[in-house]
Amino acid sequence: MSENKINKKQSRRDFLQKTALAGAGASFLLSNPMSAFAGSINSNNMSHNIKSKGYAAFDTSGELKPWDFERRPVGDNDVLIDVKYASICHSDIHQMKGHWGPQQYPQIPGHEIVGIVAAVGKNVTKFKVGDRAGVGCMVDSCMTCDSCTHGEEHYCENGQTLFTYGYPDKKSPTGITQGGYASNIVVRDHFAVHIPEHITLQEAAPLLCAGITTYSPLMKEDFKIGDKVGVAGIGGLGHLAVKLAVSKGAEVYAFTTSPDKVDDIKSWGAKEVIVVDEKFSSMGAYAKKLDYMICTIPYQFNAAPYVACVKPYGNFTYVGMPEGFAINLSNIALAATRVNFNASLIGGIPETQEVIHYCADNGVKPEIKMISAEEINEAWKNVENKKARYRYVIDAATF
Amino acid sequence: MSENKINKKQSRRDFLQKTALAGAGASFLLSNPMSAFAGSINSNNMSHNIKSKGYAAFDTSGELKPWDFERRPVGDNDVLIDVKYASICHSDIHQMKGHWGPQQYPQIPGHEIVGIVAAVGKNVTKFKVGDRAGVGCMVDSCMTCDSCTHGEEHYCENGQTLFTYGYPDKKSPTGITQGGYASNIVVRDHFAVHIPEHITLQEAAPLLCAGITTYSPLMKEDFKIGDKVGVAGIGGLGHLAVKLAVSKGAEVYAFTTSPDKVDDIKSWGAKEVIVVDEKFSSMGAYAKKLDYMICTIPYQFNAAPYVACVKPYGNFTYVGMPEGFAINLSNIALAATRVNFNASLIGGIPETQEVIHYCADNGVKPEIKMISAEEINEAWKNVENKKARYRYVIDAATF
Repeated sequence: MSENKINKKQSRRDFLQKTALAGAGASFLLSNPMSAFAGSINSNNMSHNIKSKGYAAFDTSGELKPWDFERRPVGDNDVLIDVKYASICHSDIHQMKGHWGPQQYPQIPGHEIVGIVAAVGKNVTKFKVGDRAGVGCMVDSCMTCDSCTHGEEHYCENGQTLFTYGYPDKKSPTGITQGGYASNIVVRDHFAVHIPEHITLQEAAPLLCAGITTYSPLMKEDFKIGDKVGVAGIGGLGHLAVKLAVSKGAEVYAFTTSPDKVDDIKSWGAKEVIVVDEKFSSMGAYAKKLDYMICTIPYQFNAAPYVACVKPYGNFTYVGMPEGFAINLSNIALAATRVNFNASLIGGIPETQEVIHYCADNGVKPEIKMISAEEINEAWKNVENKKARYRYVIDAATF
Repeated sequence: MSENKINKKQSRRDFLQKTALAGAGASFLLSNPMSAFAGSINSNNMSHNIKSKGYAAFDTSGELKPWDFERRPVGDNDVLIDVKYASICHSDIHQMKGHWGPQQYPQIPGHEIVGIVAAVGKNVTKFKVGDRAGVGCMVDSCMTCDSCTHGEEHYCENGQTLFTYGYPDKKSPTGITQGGYASNIVVRDHFAVHIPEHITLQEAAPLLCAGITTYSPLMKEDFKIGDKVGVAGIGGLGHLAVKLAVSKGAEVYAFTTSPDKVDDIKSWGAKEVIVVDEKFSSMGAYAKKLDYMICTIPYQFNAAPYVACVKPYGNFTYVGMPEGFAINLSNIALAATRVNFNASLIGGIPETQEVIHYCADNGVKPEIKMISAEEINEAWKNVENKKARYRYVIDAATF
């Protein structure tokens, strides 16, 4: 195809997008007057790389620095999102520090991303410019396999789940996916979700990973109202697990190593908060007491005393992602509990959309602390030292 | 109480036992003419230690030598069993070699034990002298807790499950329980099971550990006829798992690292036998194919490729007991499979009785090779080198 034809097609695509936008209705235009025209302002989005700036890791030190880089052009099935907020997940730190394997640098972390759609490809009907949108832990997959066509894109059977940062990506000018600690992101439309108006963008951000990662196994467990649900590790993921399980009617038992979190956790409706010491001396009283437990501890730990809190033949789901992804279990201890040990990885796109609507509709809100970009490095240290209360949200205007 | 009174009580007890025996019927007396009077021959069983001889470990070398030792007297709730056969479990080797922790020596291994009841305590109604009886992996428990009263004595909630060898036992003259590689054993009646006439004693022996350990999780899984059941590790436990699962109507997929076992395994009715190499190259074709898998591998191994053979949300049960009881899993690999990983430890006494009846009634027979006591050390080496085909059974007459 000649360059001229490409340009004509480009113009046609821009036109179609603007036409679709015009039909979106006045209420939308009024609520986002500036964003509404982003698609027309940046007509080159479709053919040229997108300039972006953010905070990147340059090595395994865990220190992030400002970095200007480029995203791919907005493809026919893509949306460009002007990032408004990105929140900090412990996984960001693990991956940048190489805890899960060697990394390519510079690399932009961040997979709890919210913002406003600034441009859409010609095939996109899911979003229009100006929409509030979120992106979580993945940005593409094969979209044809049994898992992908059943809302489990994170388990793509062709191994094509493309995680949001650090994964090889031929379309990316940097050769890898680059995450959400940045001014914008380009993502295949299917992998962005809508953020309804009745939740703030900054409160929606943590739902894109911490929310869906705890919501998905809690829903699969299908516990009954009044069932005793344990939550181990009350950080970014755990505090949402407590709130979600309480909201769904569980009697929640929260296990934390931080005594100063007790009052917070009780205020979210937990039935009991168990402060865990190094000898697990407080846990014996809870042996076989719980119908289910979800464990979010993001480092290697002794799982046995936690698993032992679940009733025989109950389920225990581990969603933390420790260094080396390593779980060390004692076969005889696991046998003695008769508990099913499983692990769960985020959740699919339909379920991610579901948890956002659920939280918006039911007032389940993460506890957030707003920070600017230059506060990221301090925030990361706090996350590692269990001092986050409970999710740091970066204002993307400060990148 | 004076010694005279004790003796009178002893005589009364002997008398009662003989009376009970007399009511057992002629068929029993005829089938076991010698054993029938063992209770009267050894009237001192009730007050004096019982002399026994067997093959014991004296250190972690894995070499067994003959050893004369004493059992406790036959208590009111005990039975004395003249051991006829004891079979060799990989666990015997692990424990004697200290793979699961330091051991007291001399120690007699063996927890697949069959023989003839030679004496019974005054409260015993479950057995009479001359009965065919078997003893498995445990010889006592609290008998009052919820688990013990529900047929799960191996999960005694008061921690009083007493395993058959090497466990501290105040009643034992040696201070620990001593196993079945010996001429006799004294055991609380509840912990012995009946061996029906339509299975040979030597074929019943392996059912006491290998049989129940595989039967119990297979039954809990409650698979449907035609379901695809995987069995990993085709040794003493695995070969019975194949036979039991085939007998229960499963389509069995057997995974072995020994190509020369393929014909045997197919002859037992397995649908497919997969020879596993070091790179697991043959296993990719079985990804997500199985409804369930039971894994008997008795050493530390890479569980991921096995677990990946089970359909998402299916169960995987590990019954092998590796060095250090250690299971090493990758959280992300486990998450990707969405499989429930659990472990299972032998089975309770009622279920042990059940598997023996099931095998006798349905012709499920272990593949056994008879050996004499002096062949034990060579047999142990063969077990470790995967050369057992498939269970060695020791003739106790050779101790």
